[in-house]
This record gives sequence, structure tokens and C-alpha cells, in this order.
Amino acid sequence: MSPCAPDTLISALSWRYATKVFDPSRKVSDADMKVLMQSLVLTPSSFGLQPYRFLVVTDPELKARLRGASWGQGQVTDCSHLVVFLARQAMTEADVDHYIRRIAQVRGDQPENLAAYRSMMVGTLVTGPRAATVPEWAARQAYIALGQFMASAALLGLDTCPMEGLDPKQYDEILGLNDTPFRTVVACPVGYRAEGDKYASLAKVRFPVEELVEQR
Amino acid sequence: MSPCAPDTLISALSWRYATKVFDPSRKVSDADMKVLMQSLVLTPSSFGLQPYRFLVVTDPELKARLRGASWGQGQVTDCSHLVVFLARQAMTEADVDHYIRRIAQVRGDQPENLAAYRSMMVGTLVTGPRAATVPEWAARQAYIALGQFMASAALLGLDTCPMEGLDPKQYDEILGLNDTPFRTVVACPVGYRAEGDKYASLAKVRFPVEELVEQR
Repeated sequence: MSPCAPDTLISALSWRYATKVFDPSRKVSDADMKVLMQSLVLTPSSFGLQPYRFLVVTDPELKARLRGASWGQGQVTDCSHLVVFLARQAMTEADVDHYIRRIAQVRGDQPENLAAYRSMMVGTLVTGPRAATVPEWAARQAYIALGQFMASAALLGLDTCPMEGLDPKQYDEILGLNDTPFRTVVACPVGYRAEGDKYASLAKVRFPVEELVEQR
Repeated sequence: MSPCAPDTLISALSWRYATKVFDPSRKVSDADMKVLMQSLVLTPSSFGLQPYRFLVVTDPELKARLRGASWGQGQVTDCSHLVVFLARQAMTEADVDHYIRRIAQVRGDQPENLAAYRSMMVGTLVTGPRAATVPEWAARQAYIALGQFMASAALLGLDTCPMEGLDPKQYDEILGLNDTPFRTVVACPVGYRAEGDKYASLAKVRFPVEELVEQR
């Protein structure tokens, strides 16, 4: 038997919608937030490098400033927690070494035994032609996290709203990221839908499966 | 109570790993594939535009050719189903109209009532400055699908391996995509791990939650 019944999975993913109005009085519990953060940590990523960070914003003043950088969208302030997804802008040898040390630590290995893996990552992302594409590579990894995050939230009965409609440069400024290797790529408010959100009851619009999926 | 118990969710996401060796004798059932395809269809996307397609490859000869364009990685041929994620390379007014008609159809509305939404999408993605960024915008949406797909598979007890190590141009050629608006961005074999895959039992390497997640 699968860990989750197929019907449960599909009904949770169908229940999910881009929440337009959150109930500002309802807060996600610490226990649920802990699960969501574990879900973020468990995201699969390229080489396992996890080239992202996640900011969980609850401070009302900070949320209000970020709302100003998000076309005034009310979800930013009315949600329980606003998760901002950051992507790394460059990879250095030090970043690779930091990861290699972590592998050795977790697996009780010696960093020297991971020299070939280290070289491969350095050659690809630090010194190779793909170094210039690191910001986009890292952004895509952050989007894997976003996908896993929204699915996880739905399975916990929590509402989300993926939000690309924001000014990343203003976010970076407000969040003080300009002196860090990370930049804002996308945000996702989480919380509970307000009873009056008319979008909750609209039929979900998707192209038919035969249009989106092709068997070969 | 949440649709899925938090412990079940976290243990499924922890059980998941980038499967290196699939058991070629085990096939994912049609029922499970149907659920996975629904999960792909239900992916949240920017404006709801679903600027992606998914190819589900099972033909052994085609898999063999794709393996040659994937650094020879055995997962491509040994998996049960290989899902190839495609992203749209440009958005036209006709594409937006097609989506608008679908909204009207699903919600029993008239396309004319959606004129403002149509204008906004056209202004952003067809005629606006962001038109040039459509390939990357669409690729990111495909990565949301990838994240939701891998989480869904884990919840169904199915193994996956996200695969960026492929030559997209060769894939496009082999799959005959060059005359379509879509191009390969990433692939994901799905199936069952082989008993002998030593990676299955290695400790999962992640940075500590305090390093990846910051509260504000």
C-alpha cells in the first residue's frame, strides 16, 4: 500500500488553489510550520547542492513593506507566514567545499574520498561554462522547492499562493540580501483561506490531460 | 485533521532519493501512472497558463536513444516510465486565446468577460519586455511540476530521479520537438529502486534547517 492513498493525494492537490484572500486571524501552528520547513529542507536539488535559502517572514512591519514591493497584494500581509525563496547567484570553490564537508560529516566519511565528486562540481559550476548560468540553475532548484512546498502544504490542509508578481530587487533591498550570495526569486504566502474568497469555489481550469501529456 | 498525517508526509519525502538503479522488471501500474499524470496536470502555474508539456516515454527503442543523450545513465532505460518535461519557448496571442477559451469553457463564462485578464497576459508575455524571458519563465513552471511530481511519486511509494544531466538539443531532435513550440528542460525517470542500489541506504545529506531557513 502506498504511504498516501491516491485519492487523498489527488483531492489535496485539487483542493489547493492560488489563494487570493487569507484569513488574517488564523495562524499556522508551529508544528505544521516545522513540517513545512522539513519539506523545504528535503527538496531534491542538483548535485544535492541546495543552492537556495528560505526566509519565513511573520513580522507585520516587514510584511507590510514587502506588500509594497508585491503590487500591493493583500496575501503578503494577510497570510500567516510569507515564505520567500532565494537562489544563489554564484558558486565558489568554498561553497563546494562546504557541501563536501557536510556530506563527509553526515555519512561519516573523509572529504578526501569525495575529491572526484568535488572536482566534477567545481568543473561544472565554478570554473566551467555553466558558471554563468548559476543564477538560473539555482532559481530552478528553488522552484522544485516551491513545487514540493505547495504540494506538502495542501496535504497538511494549508493554503498557499505562488507569487511571482513581486519586484525581486525591492525584495532584496528590504530583506538586506545585497551583501549575501542570495537573491529573491519567488514568494509563497501560507495560511488559511478566508471564508469569503470567491476564487476558492471556482472550477479549476486545466487543459485536458491528453493535451498536456503525451505517451511515447 | 490534515488530509495526510505530517509523519507520513515527512517519511515519504525522506524515503525519496535520487534513484541510481531502477529494477527494470518492475513497472508502475496504469492506475498509479494515471494519478501521477493528474498530479502533473494539477501543477500550479503562472497565470494558470500551463506553458509546458510532459512526454511519458516507455518505448524501449526510444528510451535507448534518449539514454545516449543522457550521458549513458542507466535510469533512462531501466526505469518504468521516463517523463520528459518540456517548456514553451514563446507565447503568442493565439496561445493566450486558447487558454481564455478554456477558462470560459470550464467555468461556463464568455471569453469576452475575460478581456481584461487576456490583455494583462498579452501585455506581459506576448508584447511586453518579459516576452524575451518566456523560455526561462516556462522552464521554471516546469520545475514546479517536477517538484510536485516527485513529491507525489514518493507519496505513492514510487521512485524517481530528477535528471538535468542530459543534452536538451539532442532530446529535442530525438523527440521531434523542433517543429513545435516546446523544448526539453529536464527529465525524471519513475519506477522502483533495484534492491542493490547502494545509494538507497546512504544517509540523506542536507544542510541543517537553521542554515537553510531563516525566520524574520
